[in-house]
Amino acid sequence: MTTPEGERSERSDGPTRAFVPGHITGFFSVHPHDDSRRAGSRGAGIALADGVTVAVAPPDTGETTIALGGEPVEMDAVARTLDTLGVRARVAVETPLPVSAGFGVSGGAALGAALAANARFDLERTENELVATAHAAEVDAGTGLGDVVAQARGGVPLRVEPGAPPHGHLDGIPLRANRRIEYVSFDRRSTEAVLGGDTDGLSQEAPTIERLVTCSATFAREADLLTERVEAAIEAVETAGGMASMAMLGETVFALDTGLTEAGYEPATCAIHPSGAGIVGPDIG
Amino acid sequence: MTTPEGERSERSDGPTRAFVPGHITGFFSVHPHDDSRRAGSRGAGIALADGVTVAVAPPDTGETTIALGGEPVEMDAVARTLDTLGVRARVAVETPLPVSAGFGVSGGAALGAALAANARFDLERTENELVATAHAAEVDAGTGLGDVVAQARGGVPLRVEPGAPPHGHLDGIPLRANRRIEYVSFDRRSTEAVLGGDTDGLSQEAPTIERLVTCSATFAREADLLTERVEAAIEAVETAGGMASMAMLGETVFALDTGLTEAGYEPATCAIHPSGAGIVGPDIG
Repeated sequence: MTTPEGERSERSDGPTRAFVPGHITGFFSVHPHDDSRRAGSRGAGIALADGVTVAVAPPDTGETTIALGGEPVEMDAVARTLDTLGVRARVAVETPLPVSAGFGVSGGAALGAALAANARFDLERTENELVATAHAAEVDAGTGLGDVVAQARGGVPLRVEPGAPPHGHLDGIPLRANRRIEYVSFDRRSTEAVLGGDTDGLSQEAPTIERLVTCSATFAREADLLTERVEAAIEAVETAGGMASMAMLGETVFALDTGLTEAGYEPATCAIHPSGAGIVGPDIG
Repeated sequence: MTTPEGERSERSDGPTRAFVPGHITGFFSVHPHDDSRRAGSRGAGIALADGVTVAVAPPDTGETTIALGGEPVEMDAVARTLDTLGVRARVAVETPLPVSAGFGVSGGAALGAALAANARFDLERTENELVATAHAAEVDAGTGLGDVVAQARGGVPLRVEPGAPPHGHLDGIPLRANRRIEYVSFDRRSTEAVLGGDTDGLSQEAPTIERLVTCSATFAREADLLTERVEAAIEAVETAGGMASMAMLGETVFALDTGLTEAGYEPATCAIHPSGAGIVGPDIG
């Protein structure tokens, strides 16, 4: 039998890597459930080309270790994901995104760990099983409710029914072309709030990214989520003729196109990531 | 307001393009339904980086025209898709794949037309609505049952429940790394057959691409689908130590990695397309 390409990475000593797009939530509603695979949120968000890369390899000492940017950290969602999969690993997470600022870094780390561990240790789970494992771990860790399923899909995901597959149900807003997203984070926020807000209005009329941002800004104002700096930045972008809102739940403002730049900020920028999470491997033509 | 990037392509005179991966089905079962959005197939397949590019622009004469490789053609699934969306268009389809050979070209043309027409004419449908429209058009045209939903997902899609979203339900086989797919087509086949074969065995144990090919070859033999040339090619690949099967339903053999080359054939080659269909646009960093 010919040597399948995939065998090489499995049998080498190096890590297997997965990439998961970042995800900002524009608005959402919380849907608790005793089964953490059925718990989750409805809402709408944007997957970002700035994301999370997760490298998984066998553990050095026999115990799971997790590093973020080279520094040892505790990431409960990642530890729970590996526990559920029944493996121990050396996990290295790298991201240009700020942590605890509303970009889905913990959910991305959990999903990336699930995808990379499945590949590295030949676990033979399906994609849905891996997404559900990471989603449940994130819910149980209390660090997120909807990022994982959105990050698995990519693009501009609408969470129509809460939870992981096969319970949850997603749709998406098609883009006419890719869009530049700008963002500024002022601080970190670790609180979770229970809020009301739904995708019904968005999916029943005019599902556009502009309307997503408008709904998000209205939602953030009505739910009284805005800090002074966030409110000032959103208003500055709107005054300059752009569209911006707050990333739930961080002290982070995101804008379409060059909105923050034109309002005088110096934002980080990236594209929308049109596809979902996956293993990083060599392209084979 | 800043000019959104997407507006440019909409307002220029040029066409909007969508890319849809090719799709070979390894095995399947047929599930008829009066509602063509609920009709479909269960099964497993592979999305290919060799795919279908569909350009959509306003019609020259007021009527819809469809060209394939520059030549006027009838493509019922495309015409029905545009009818359902309520638009007329000039549609140009380009593909390196053989037509009517089991690569999902008609389904890809329908899905690409839906995505590109939505973008070009600002139709504001969601992604699921566009997939369901193309799926129903393909079912009603009698040219396919499961390619469209698989092409919308990409990778190695498992059709767990038949039909378009929100009725149908997909899973996927994760890859440890991308894989080379080789294929040879001997002839064109336009028949549709009703066959039995299901994803249960694949999704309940060892969901790997190797097992997909093994199940597919067993399925093709048991369903007596093999022509002499197809059977000879599969056996030659197996004798040379590789894995191959038949693409349903064309006189086409596909193999993993370098299977056909090592058996002495001169196949076309491409990678697996890890993501689903989408608009082709400039990347914006």
